[in-house]
Parts: sequence; structure tokens; C-alpha cells
Amino acid sequence: MFDTIVALATPPGVGAIGVIRVSGPKTIQIVNEVFRGKNLEEVNSHTIHLGTIRDGEEIIDEVLVSIFKAPNSYTKEDVIEISCHGSHFIIQQLIKLLLKHGARLAKPGEFTQRAFVNGRFDLAQAEAVADLIASENESMHSAAIKQMRGGFSIEIKKLREELIHFASMIELELDFSEEDVEFASREDLKKLVYSLKGLITRLTESFTLGNAIKNGIPTVIAGKPNAGKSTLLNALLNEEKAIVSDIPGTTRDVIEDVINVDSIAFRFTDTAGIRTTDDKVEAIGVERTYAKMKDAAVIIYLIDMIHDSVYDLETQINYLKELEVPYLLIGNKLDKAHPELQKALEQEKALFISASQKHNLENLKEALKELVSLDAFKSGNTIVTNLRHYEGLMSTNQALDQVLEGIDNEVTNDFVAMDIRNALHHLGELTGEITTEDLLDNIFSKFCIGK
Amino acid sequence: MFDTIVALATPPGVGAIGVIRVSGPKTIQIVNEVFRGKNLEEVNSHTIHLGTIRDGEEIIDEVLVSIFKAPNSYTKEDVIEISCHGSHFIIQQLIKLLLKHGARLAKPGEFTQRAFVNGRFDLAQAEAVADLIASENESMHSAAIKQMRGGFSIEIKKLREELIHFASMIELELDFSEEDVEFASREDLKKLVYSLKGLITRLTESFTLGNAIKNGIPTVIAGKPNAGKSTLLNALLNEEKAIVSDIPGTTRDVIEDVINVDSIAFRFTDTAGIRTTDDKVEAIGVERTYAKMKDAAVIIYLIDMIHDSVYDLETQINYLKELEVPYLLIGNKLDKAHPELQKALEQEKALFISASQKHNLENLKEALKELVSLDAFKSGNTIVTNLRHYEGLMSTNQALDQVLEGIDNEVTNDFVAMDIRNALHHLGELTGEITTEDLLDNIFSKFCIGK
Repeated sequence: MFDTIVALATPPGVGAIGVIRVSGPKTIQIVNEVFRGKNLEEVNSHTIHLGTIRDGEEIIDEVLVSIFKAPNSYTKEDVIEISCHGSHFIIQQLIKLLLKHGARLAKPGEFTQRAFVNGRFDLAQAEAVADLIASENESMHSAAIKQMRGGFSIEIKKLREELIHFASMIELELDFSEEDVEFASREDLKKLVYSLKGLITRLTESFTLGNAIKNGIPTVIAGKPNAGKSTLLNALLNEEKAIVSDIPGTTRDVIEDVINVDSIAFRFTDTAGIRTTDDKVEAIGVERTYAKMKDAAVIIYLIDMIHDSVYDLETQINYLKELEVPYLLIGNKLDKAHPELQKALEQEKALFISASQKHNLENLKEALKELVSLDAFKSGNTIVTNLRHYEGLMSTNQALDQVLEGIDNEVTNDFVAMDIRNALHHLGELTGEITTEDLLDNIFSKFCIGK
Repeated sequence: MFDTIVALATPPGVGAIGVIRVSGPKTIQIVNEVFRGKNLEEVNSHTIHLGTIRDGEEIIDEVLVSIFKAPNSYTKEDVIEISCHGSHFIIQQLIKLLLKHGARLAKPGEFTQRAFVNGRFDLAQAEAVADLIASENESMHSAAIKQMRGGFSIEIKKLREELIHFASMIELELDFSEEDVEFASREDLKKLVYSLKGLITRLTESFTLGNAIKNGIPTVIAGKPNAGKSTLLNALLNEEKAIVSDIPGTTRDVIEDVINVDSIAFRFTDTAGIRTTDDKVEAIGVERTYAKMKDAAVIIYLIDMIHDSVYDLETQINYLKELEVPYLLIGNKLDKAHPELQKALEQEKALFISASQKHNLENLKEALKELVSLDAFKSGNTIVTNLRHYEGLMSTNQALDQVLEGIDNEVTNDFVAMDIRNALHHLGELTGEITTEDLLDNIFSKFCIGK
């Protein structure tokens, strides 16, 4: 049995109203003791009641009380939300009073933890609630909403059901082991595992994008020294800063090198200019740049259209293609471009800008957005945004590999069954069918108070 | 006719939930256009509905919608409160969407202004809402609650009714002016005006306390040089700071010299040490100290029990008594007190402390609290906390003086009636029966957005 918890659900600070949330078996009793208005024991769920909260005869505030009766509430317990005047002092007094009457201060995420434990949603969905609150742009928000509404969970459930079906066939064979029957051909089983692995691979591959969405898409601006990399970065940042300062009420620390392009966050990384060199120290720097380019999700590659040569262009483009990272080829210094070079770049479908004149930056942003395109997003596919989920999927995949290996090596069915159970275990951890206290603490302690 | 307004009602920042408030004739229609769940046109007032807010097919958030139908709402208009996830991004998107569907961004205090205009409460009560939100301790809170619940308004209403009664008698006489009747003896009328003035004086006198409650009770620590004034102030401040840092979520700027003693704010003023002097410059400093003591609500007067003399004590106490300001006589340096001096102080009911040892400070605080006692508070009397109200009452009082003067000088009844109308005008401004756009703008622009 749970006790009754209370916390401020709205941000701290002065505002028109504050909302205090109470959840647990004694919610209605506790609030009723301090509420002067209708008898809350007798009202319907999902109704709102005006009244006063009093400590003895002293009025603490005039409030609106919203009542949600179990199981039709966020936590599936009795829940009351008290909407009071948004004064820090009043909120403190109200919470103190509720504590005095038997409630306990909620831990971070404890309401959502109860919602999970009481079966309102699975663990992946609960985690999405925190992501949703933390979402700062459209793509983060959209990924979190999808996950909260069960997108990821449905995929996992599909996997799990197919795996359970698979396991049941193997275990059926175990029951008849002395008769040497085969309820499913090993070839069919392998096909099933491959299809599961395909699904997992699609999900784990989406994590690169998911991670990019959550933390900003790793973007590298590269090019030879003096191609205009810093000028471009500054031009993009300055515009962004102007936009950020337009948003009222944002007090978050602005990370200098994250730029939102139409609600997609790009995390820019500085690179040293690329040039072939015999100098060992510089060579290391260049190697690092290559490594960053290789790791990037997108490369913006700048060509200096005044000083570069057509010959060098080919070398650079070949190199870019070898990296197998989506790239934008940009001809910079459009205002003074070398015509031959510009023509060669046109053939490579380059985009022309002048970073210093801030010319054509809108086109560059548009192209950048199209490059990452977030196709998976638009297609409605599930995106894995959470490292824990990614790791769980990877573990599942490993277990499935062992299943395949076992089949190929013709190990006995009980070993195969064990590997399948192992895979099922990892999947269960994702959605919370299998949990430990540590796991839950770790997940919910990252939530804010009152959620 | 009003349009439909929208604003975030909870403080900006990340929290578990945010509440967006919509009010006006098109509230239900506008929210219904973007809400996917029950048809809000068909639900009862004071009910809560789970659903999603969508921009086209894109889900912006899962929300709870609370519906209040006119006139049973804060503004007496149709009101909807949307409780969404507390992400800045989501809140922005939701507000933008509501604007797109025909709502307008609310100005600061506009919801409360509508509540006033639609007759939910009078102007003094509306002003108390802002005071309540700004309240930082128990006495501010208690004064605001009382005012919001109509305490001040009821007193004013009483005044106004008596005055109207008075005016009607005078005006009745005007109708019969040629017959030289007197419906009320001039002596009775004067008695009535005096009783009104008595009420007004009680209210205006409470303003000193009301102002003290709002801004901290002006407290002076005085005494001869080296009596331990700064040591005491620091000792009190340090304790206070420790308490302040215990409160979670408070980020307000701490004003160094305001100390809360059991929820009453004391605003301490530094003073130069008092000594008789022939030096002109120092004399000015001492005069200033005297002026501050005279203006204070409370004086904490420190005696150095090591170095002071019994003879000087008498002079100092006599001076204190002349000031007619409540004072606490404190014998400091208790650990090394001169026995004879301590005995003399005992007879004066002094309190003994050691500021440097932080000894007996609790008793000092207790005594301080008792001294200001806020008797008026405890008696349930109305306290005027608002400068505008104070000035309005003073103007009413002046108009009443003119009434009295007129009666004494036997001016014609129409002049007396004019003076009464003048007094009624000032009272009407207090409660908002008489308003100008400037007055309202001035009052409500100080509110926070969403209230």
C-alpha cells in the first residue's frame, strides 16, 4: 500500500496560480479536513470546487479543488489538485498544512512512478513524460509525444510477442524431447529471429537520429583554412541569438554552439582547417578533424571560391564521399567567386553563399534541414531517443545472436530456450515488466518534483 | 463586449505542469476547435476533461481541460484552464495555437480586471489579489486575505451608506428650501460626520501598520556608541540568513536589513550612536538619529551594561519616553554587566542579552513581536495596506472637514450637499464605483500576466 504524497506541480516562483498535487489513498480525507466548501467525500470525479483552505479558523487561501477519483487519475489513485494563488508563502503554508494532516512530501517523479506501478503506462512511456517536459524544440517534442503515446512500447510489445511465440514452440519441443519432433522448422525459426533482428536494427539505428534530436544533431563545419568556417558559424549563431532573445521567459543557459533551424537543434563542432601537411603536430589536428567529420551526422563543407582550385576540389569531394556522412557542399565567398571553380561546383550541386555578407544563409539552412530531413520522423516510424533503451535493444540483439548461433551449432533446445528467455528479459526491462528498485530510482529521480 | 484572452497562469520555467487560462465569449468555441476529447460545448461547468490538443493532426500535448461557464468563473465569463506538461516549448505552441484560433494575448492583470468590471468583486478586493500573490509572510498574507474577502470594502460600504443617508437628508431639505424645514438637527448631522471621521481616522491610522506589514516594520536599533548595535543587527541578520536559505525555491533578492521574526518583517535602520556633543557635525548626525527614532514604529534601545552609568540611564529613558514610540530597553553585554546598572535596568523592565554571545536573542525577538503585537490584526480590524486607499481616505476626510466647516459657518445646503458629493466621489474611487481608464490601467498593469 502506498501513502499519500503531496508536491507543488507548477514551477516555483511568483505567478497567477500555483497547483499543488496530492495523490494516495487518504487524499480526499486529508484535503477534506482543511477544505471549507463542498464535502469532497460526496462529489463526483473530474469536478472542480471553490472554497477555502483553513488551518483551524485561519484562512490560508481561496482555492479551486479538482478531484480525480481512482482509477481515473494520472496515478490511478485518488488525486486532488489544489489551484491556489501563486505566492511562494501561500504554497508553503498549504503544503505544510497537508503534511500536518498526514500527507508526505513527494520525491521527484513519484507521481509518475506510481502511474507506472499502477499500470497507467509502461516504463518507456513514463520516461517519455520527462523527455516531454524537457523538450525544447519541435523534434524533441514530437519524439517524446510519440513515445509517451506508446509508439516505442508497441514496437517492443510486437517483438516480445513474436519472441514468446518462438519460445513456446521451442519449449513445446522440449516437452516432447524424447520423440524428436520439430514443431517448427529450424529454417523458419531462423527467419523469425532474423526478422526480429531486423526490427531491432531499425530501432537501434534510429538512436543516432534520436540522440541527435535530444542533444542536437552533431554538425561539423569543415573546409580548408580560411574557407570561412568561423564566419559562417558566427553568422548562423548571431541570427539564432536574435531569435532566442525574442522568446519571453526563457532563462535557460544558451549553449553557444547549438543552433535551432526550424525547431531542429544542430550542435556545431569546431574543426581545424583541413590541409595536407608534413608537420606532425598539424597532422594530428587534421586527423582529429577527420575523426569529427566521420562521427558527424552532417558535414557542411566550405570551399573558398576565391583561392581554391578546381583540381583540389576533386580531391576534397572524393574524400567527402569516402566518409559516407551526409554533407552539404558550399561555395563560399560568392561575391568574388572564381568563375571556373563556381562552374565546377555547380556540377557538384553545391550551394553558393557569402558567409561574411550573410548572403543565402536561408537557403543553406533549408538545405541543412532537408539533408537531415528526419524522414523516419515524417514516416511516423518510432525513434529511440533514450540511451537505456538503446542499450537494452543492443543486449536483446546479442541474445538473439546467441539463439542463432545455438541453432546453427545444433545445441540442445534447453540452451536455445535459455537464450530466448535472456532476450525476453532485456525486452522486459525496457517496458518495465522486469524492474529493480535501483532501476526505478535511477529513472524517476531525474524527474522534477510534482511530476 | 470583450474579446477572448489567453495567458500562461503559472510561473514561467520548467515544472510538472503549466496552466493556460482562456477567458471570454469565444473561449469554449476556440478551445473546442483544437481539443480532441469530449465536445466541450456539451459538458457541464466545473468539470475536467482529458484529451489532446492538436494543430491539424499533429498532437501538441495531452492535457486536462477545466471548464467554468459564465457567470460561475473567476472573470464571470466562460473560462477554460488547460493543464499541460510544463515544458516551455509546449506552452508556447499551445498559446500560439489559441491565438491562431482567435484568442488574444492577455495583458497583465486582465483576467482580474474583467472580474472587477463584471462585478465579481470591487476594486479594493481586486487590488488585494495582487497583494496576496506578492505576500511573503504571514502578516502580509493575512492582511491581503482579509482585504480580498471584503474587509476593507465592507468598512467603506458602511461609510458610504451613512454618507448617502446624510446626503439624502440634506437634499430633502433642499427640496423644501422655501419652507425652512430641518429634517435632521445640525447637531445630529455633525455627530454623524464626526462618527464617520472617527471611522476614517481608525482606517488611516491603521495604514502605518499596514504599510509596515507590507514593507517591513520600521525598526531602529539605537543607543550610545559601542552599545553593541551593529553586533546585534548582524547576529539577527545571520540567523535570518540561515533560515532564508532553508526555504526551497526562493530566489528573491534578500534585502540585507529586513528580518522576518515569526512571519513579521522588520525593516532595520542603522543609526549613529547617540551622545551629547558640542561638535556641530556630530550634532547633525545625532539629530538625524533622533528623527529616525521618532519615525520608527519600534525602537530597540541598547544599554552597554559594562560602560554606561545609572545616572545616564535615567536621561536616556526619559528621552525614549518623550519620543512616544514603542521601545524595547535592552541591557547588552550581560556576561560582564555592572551589577548596579543591571539592577536599575531591571526596574525599567529591560531585557538582558549578549549580542556578541548571541545570548537571549530569542527572548528579544519574542518581545519585539509582542511590542508590535499587531493587535489590530488579532482583533480582526481592517488594516489599510495600500497607499491609494490611504490617500482616498484622507481626501474623504478633507471633504468631510469642509462639510463640518460649512455647517458651522451656516453655508447654504447646496454647498454642504456638494461637499458630501465630493466625499462620496473619493469613497467611490476606492471601491471602483467611480473609475477612469487611467486608474484601472495603473492598478492592473502591476499585476502579473495570467492573473
